[in-house]
Amino acid sequence: MIDSMTDQKSAADEKTLDRIATQIRRWILRCTSQAGSGHPTSSLSAVELMVDLMFGGTFRYDVKTPEHPGNDRLIFSKGHASPLFYSLWAAAGEVSEEELMTYRQFDSELEGHPTSRFRFTEAATGSLGQGLSVGLGMAINAKYIDELPYRTFVLLGDSEMAEGSQWEAIQLAAHYQLDNLIGVLDVNRLGQRGETMYGHDLEAYRQRIEAFGWRCILVSDGHDHAQLSRAYESACQSTGQPVMIIAWTVKGEGVSFLENKEGQHGKPVSDDRIDEAMSDVGDVNETVVGTIHPPAEVTQRQVPSQTPLPIEYELGEELATRDAYGNALCRLAKKYPDLVAFDGEVSNSTRAKQFADEHPERFFEMFIAEQNMVGAATGVALRGKLPFVSTFAAFFSRAFDQIRMAPYSGGSVTFVGSHCGVSIGQDGPSQMGLEDIAMFRTIADGVVLYPCDAVSTEALVDALADRRGLGYLRTTRGKTPVIYAADEEFTIGGSKVLRQSDQDRVTLVAAGITLHESLEAYDVLKERGIAVRVIDLYSIKPLDHATIRHAADQTEVVFTIEDHFPEGGLGEAVLTSLSDHATPVNCLAVRKRPLSGSPDEQLDAQGLSAAAIARAVEMHLA
Amino acid sequence: MIDSMTDQKSAADEKTLDRIATQIRRWILRCTSQAGSGHPTSSLSAVELMVDLMFGGTFRYDVKTPEHPGNDRLIFSKGHASPLFYSLWAAAGEVSEEELMTYRQFDSELEGHPTSRFRFTEAATGSLGQGLSVGLGMAINAKYIDELPYRTFVLLGDSEMAEGSQWEAIQLAAHYQLDNLIGVLDVNRLGQRGETMYGHDLEAYRQRIEAFGWRCILVSDGHDHAQLSRAYESACQSTGQPVMIIAWTVKGEGVSFLENKEGQHGKPVSDDRIDEAMSDVGDVNETVVGTIHPPAEVTQRQVPSQTPLPIEYELGEELATRDAYGNALCRLAKKYPDLVAFDGEVSNSTRAKQFADEHPERFFEMFIAEQNMVGAATGVALRGKLPFVSTFAAFFSRAFDQIRMAPYSGGSVTFVGSHCGVSIGQDGPSQMGLEDIAMFRTIADGVVLYPCDAVSTEALVDALADRRGLGYLRTTRGKTPVIYAADEEFTIGGSKVLRQSDQDRVTLVAAGITLHESLEAYDVLKERGIAVRVIDLYSIKPLDHATIRHAADQTEVVFTIEDHFPEGGLGEAVLTSLSDHATPVNCLAVRKRPLSGSPDEQLDAQGLSAAAIARAVEMHLA
Repeated sequence: MIDSMTDQKSAADEKTLDRIATQIRRWILRCTSQAGSGHPTSSLSAVELMVDLMFGGTFRYDVKTPEHPGNDRLIFSKGHASPLFYSLWAAAGEVSEEELMTYRQFDSELEGHPTSRFRFTEAATGSLGQGLSVGLGMAINAKYIDELPYRTFVLLGDSEMAEGSQWEAIQLAAHYQLDNLIGVLDVNRLGQRGETMYGHDLEAYRQRIEAFGWRCILVSDGHDHAQLSRAYESACQSTGQPVMIIAWTVKGEGVSFLENKEGQHGKPVSDDRIDEAMSDVGDVNETVVGTIHPPAEVTQRQVPSQTPLPIEYELGEELATRDAYGNALCRLAKKYPDLVAFDGEVSNSTRAKQFADEHPERFFEMFIAEQNMVGAATGVALRGKLPFVSTFAAFFSRAFDQIRMAPYSGGSVTFVGSHCGVSIGQDGPSQMGLEDIAMFRTIADGVVLYPCDAVSTEALVDALADRRGLGYLRTTRGKTPVIYAADEEFTIGGSKVLRQSDQDRVTLVAAGITLHESLEAYDVLKERGIAVRVIDLYSIKPLDHATIRHAADQTEVVFTIEDHFPEGGLGEAVLTSLSDHATPVNCLAVRKRPLSGSPDEQLDAQGLSAAAIARAVEMHLA
Repeated sequence: MIDSMTDQKSAADEKTLDRIATQIRRWILRCTSQAGSGHPTSSLSAVELMVDLMFGGTFRYDVKTPEHPGNDRLIFSKGHASPLFYSLWAAAGEVSEEELMTYRQFDSELEGHPTSRFRFTEAATGSLGQGLSVGLGMAINAKYIDELPYRTFVLLGDSEMAEGSQWEAIQLAAHYQLDNLIGVLDVNRLGQRGETMYGHDLEAYRQRIEAFGWRCILVSDGHDHAQLSRAYESACQSTGQPVMIIAWTVKGEGVSFLENKEGQHGKPVSDDRIDEAMSDVGDVNETVVGTIHPPAEVTQRQVPSQTPLPIEYELGEELATRDAYGNALCRLAKKYPDLVAFDGEVSNSTRAKQFADEHPERFFEMFIAEQNMVGAATGVALRGKLPFVSTFAAFFSRAFDQIRMAPYSGGSVTFVGSHCGVSIGQDGPSQMGLEDIAMFRTIADGVVLYPCDAVSTEALVDALADRRGLGYLRTTRGKTPVIYAADEEFTIGGSKVLRQSDQDRVTLVAAGITLHESLEAYDVLKERGIAVRVIDLYSIKPLDHATIRHAADQTEVVFTIEDHFPEGGLGEAVLTSLSDHATPVNCLAVRKRPLSGSPDEQLDAQGLSAAAIARAVEMHLA
C-alpha cells in the first residue's frame, strides 16, 4: 500500500525533480567555475539525495521562517558540498542566481563551507565528522527537551565516516533511541586523494552501522528518484531507532569526464570545458522552483523564568569550586528554564551529578565521548537551549576541533572543566588540565573564567548562563576557603583587588588555586616588610585591562601566578594587556614535568606555593 | 589437540597463577590504601587477564632488556589500572615491594598513571581511548617496518570503548590486517559514575568489533585460568585479522564488599576495612616470582644513513613551503632510514604524497581519523622510528589530547600542518589553522617552526628529523619566493635578521606568509623615509631571545605580524621574551571573523598585508 502510494507520488514528481536536479547541477558547475575553487564533484554525487529529500515531499520547512520550531533540520556534514547546499535554496526560490554566483567571494554569505552567516545554515561544517553530532543534539532537543515533531537530516560523506566522532554519535544516537535522526550517507567511493577504505561497498557500512543499533536503508542507485522516494518514506517511520540511508552514488555524476574519476576532488571545471560539462548535464528551458512541504503547526515550549534563591556560603567555609558549580546549576535551574547539562561520564567528579539528580530530564549522559558531547551540545544550543558541558579540563582537548567550529555555527555553549592544574595531585599529568586556558583563549569572542571560591563560581555560572556565545569555566578539584561575601558582584571582564596599599612594590595577579597561595604570600611578605598588591583575575578573557595597567603603573613589578603551562595562559594574557608598558612582568607557571604527588608538593615543586611566590618576589627585589 | 595441550599446560600452571594473582591483589589493595588514592577496583577486575597473559606462557619478554626488539609489547590503555601494572612487574621480580609501596608518592617512578619514567611503560596512558592507537603503531612497526615477530597486547577498559578514537584504531587495524595486535577488553560493567552503555553484554561488543573486521574471542569468565589460557592460545594464531579478547569480569573481584558495586571507582580501601579485604583475597605464604617466556632471538633492522643531495632552489623561485616539505621528505629519506610518514587522507594537499609515491613502504595512509593517526605515530616513534605526521594545521586540533600525552611516553614525533591561516583563501575558516601555534606551543620541550620559503623549510625538516622530542612544522598553502641561498644554515631556536640599519625605528617580527608582507612593508616604509628592521622568526619555540631583545633595545617599537589568532601565537611568544622590557610591542594578528575570499583580501582585511603593516607602523610613529 505504502509502496504503491510512493510509486504514484514519485512518478508524479519525477519529471519536476529531474528538472530541479539538472538546474542544480548547472548551478553547481557554474558557481564553482566562476569562483575558481570549490567542490563540484562532491556536490554532484548528492544532488538526487538532497533534491528528493527537499522537494520530493519528505522535508518540512517554512522557507519564510527559518526559525520556525516545527521546521525539519538539514545539516550538511560534508560541508564542502556547499555548492549543492546553496543551490537547493536557490531551487526553493530563496537564493537568487545572482547571489549564487557570489559563491566564495569576499563578504558573500555563501562561504566555501556553510556558516551561520547564511540564514539557512543549521550548523557550520567543513571540518569533517561533526555534523552528525550536531544533528544528534538537535534530535535530542526534539525528542526529550522541546518535544517537537521535527526530524533532523544529516548529509554525510563516505570519507568522513573514518572519523571516530561519527561512531561516538552513532552509538549515542542509538543509546537515546533517536528515531527522529536520519543520516543520508553519500557513498561516492572517492575521498580527496583516492578511494575510501570501503569504496562502493554499501554492505561494509551497513554491517558497521547496524551493529551499533541503527536501522539502515540501502539505496543501490542514489540517483534514482523512485528508490530514494521509497527510502525516505521508510526512513520517516519511527521505530525507536535512528536511521541511516546508505546510498551508492557517483562522484561527479552528470558530467562524463568527471564521473567516478580520481584526481577530481575540489576542482572546478576549467573554462575550456565548462560548455562540454553543461551539455552533458543538459538544459532546462526555464527556472523551476521546487515546493517544500510546510511544517506542522507547533508551539514552542515556554517555561517562565523564576527568581533563584540567593547564594549562601559563609566566609571561610571550605569547599571546592567544582562543588559550587554543581550547586549553581541546581540553584539556577528555575531562573534559566533552557539550561541543560551534558557530562562525559565524570559527573560525580565535575559535580554535574547534583544537577542530574535534581533535574534528570535536563541532564544528558554523553559517556566518554567528548567530541560528540561538544557537537551535541552545539546542536541543542542551536535550538535555543543553554547547554553546560562538563568534563575534566584536560579532556576538552579531545574536542578542540568541535569547540573551534562552534562559533561559526552560533549558539551559546558553556564548557566547564574540572581538575585543572597540577593541584589535582596524585593522579598525575594525564588528568591535569594544563593547556585548557590556552585552548579556550583562542576562541574568538569567547570567555575564560577561573574563579577561586564558591561565591565567585556561583555568580559567574549565572553570568555565563545570562550571556550569549561560548564560555569556559575552570574549576578546581580541591577545597578552597570562601573569601567573598555571598552578595559580592562579579562581572565577565572584571577582577578584584584583594590587597592594596600606597606602599605596594609588587603586584601579584592570580586566579583559582594560586590566588589563595598569593594571599598567603601577601601575609608572609607583609611580615617581611614588603607590601604587595593581590588581584583576583577571575576573568582571564575578557581581561580587566584598566585594573592591571593601573597596578602596573603603581608597582615596580608584576608577578602572574597560574596553575597552567606558561604558553597561552593567564601570564601571556597579562603580558598582552601590558604590551606597551614598561613594568616588568614575571610569569610563574607550570614549567617542570608534572608528576604524581600531593597538591602541596606539586605547587611547591612548580614554584607556585605561597612560600615559592614569596621567595620569587624577594629575589626580584633583592 | 591444541585444546588438550592447553588444558595440560594451564592445569600445570593454575596453582602458580592463582598464587601470583592473590599476591597481586594484596599488592593492589596495599599500595592504593597506602597512597590514599588510586583505582583498586578497576585493577582487580583485570588481574587474571594480565597474570595469565604474562605468566601463563603467552607473553614473551626479556625482563632484563626492556629495549629487546623481540619483546612483546603490553600497553595499559586503561592506565588507571596502574596498581595492577606495577604489581605485574613486581610479580616478575623487577619491582620490589618497597618500591611498590612508593606508588603515587612524589618523585616515585610509579605514578598514578603509567609514564615513561617507569622503565616497563610502553606508552603513557590515563587519558582514555589512546592505548589501542599506540599499540596499532607498534603493530604496524612489527609487521611493515621492522618485520619483527613481537606481538602487541593492549588492555582496554569497557568505558573507554565509547571514545571514537577506539573505533578509528579498530577500523585501521583491520585495514592493515594487523594480526599481531591483540586487544584484551576488560568488561567489568562499571564506569566511573555508573554502568557503561552495554553493561555486561559481551555480545554488544562482539557485534560491533566483528563488524569492523576483527576476530573476537569471548571469555565468559575473565577470572578463569583455563578459559583465558585457551583464549590467548587462539588469539596468537595469525589469521590476518586483529584479535579482541572480550572478557566478562567483576570490578573489585576478590573483595566481597567491592565486587560489582557502584560508587567504588577510584577509591582505595579505608584502613578500617583493609584487613577484611585482605582476608577476602587470601594469603600467600611466600612471595611467588612468575616467569615470563623469553623473546625470540631477532636482529633489529639496521639501514645505514646516507648523505642526502644538497638543497637546490633558485633565489626568487616561487613555490609553496608545503611543496618544499614534500621535497624534503624525499631528499632526506636516505639520510634518515627510520623516517616514516603518516597522513590523514590529504597527502595531495600536504604534499606527503611525494614521499608516499617514492617510498610507499614507508608511508602509511591513516584516512580521516586524526586521533588514531597521532596515536599510531607515537607507537612507531616508541619503536625507534621518526614519524612525520601531516594534515591541515586546523585538523591537528582533533588530536590535541593525543598530542598532549605524547611527551609523557617519550618518542620523537614531528607534526606538519599545512593550510595555516587566513591566507588559504576561499575555503574559509573551517579549513584555516588559526590556533595551531597556540596548541603546539603548550607542549613542554616542544618545537614550533614556521618557515617562509622552500630553503628554510627543507633545512628545518632536516633539523627536526635530527632532533629528539616533539616538533611542529607549519607550512603554507600558497606559493612564496625563495629568499635564502640554498646553503643558508637554520637552527632550531634561531632567527634571521633580513633588514637592518642604524636608523631603524621599528622592528617587524614575522614568520611564514607574513614575513613576505613585512619585507614588502619594509620597501614601502623605506620610500617614506622610515627605516625598519625585519626579523624572520622561523623558530617560534624555542625563540631567539637575544636577537629579539637586541632589536627591541635598538628600536622604538616592535610589531609582530602573524597569520594566526592573537592568543598563544607568535606575538605572545615575543611578549614573553620581552616581559621585562620597556619597548612597546604591537601584535598584528587575525582579529576579525575570517570569511571566504582571496588570500590577498583575507590578509588585507585582517591588517596583515604589506599595506596594512605599513599603515600600522606610520600610525604608531605619527
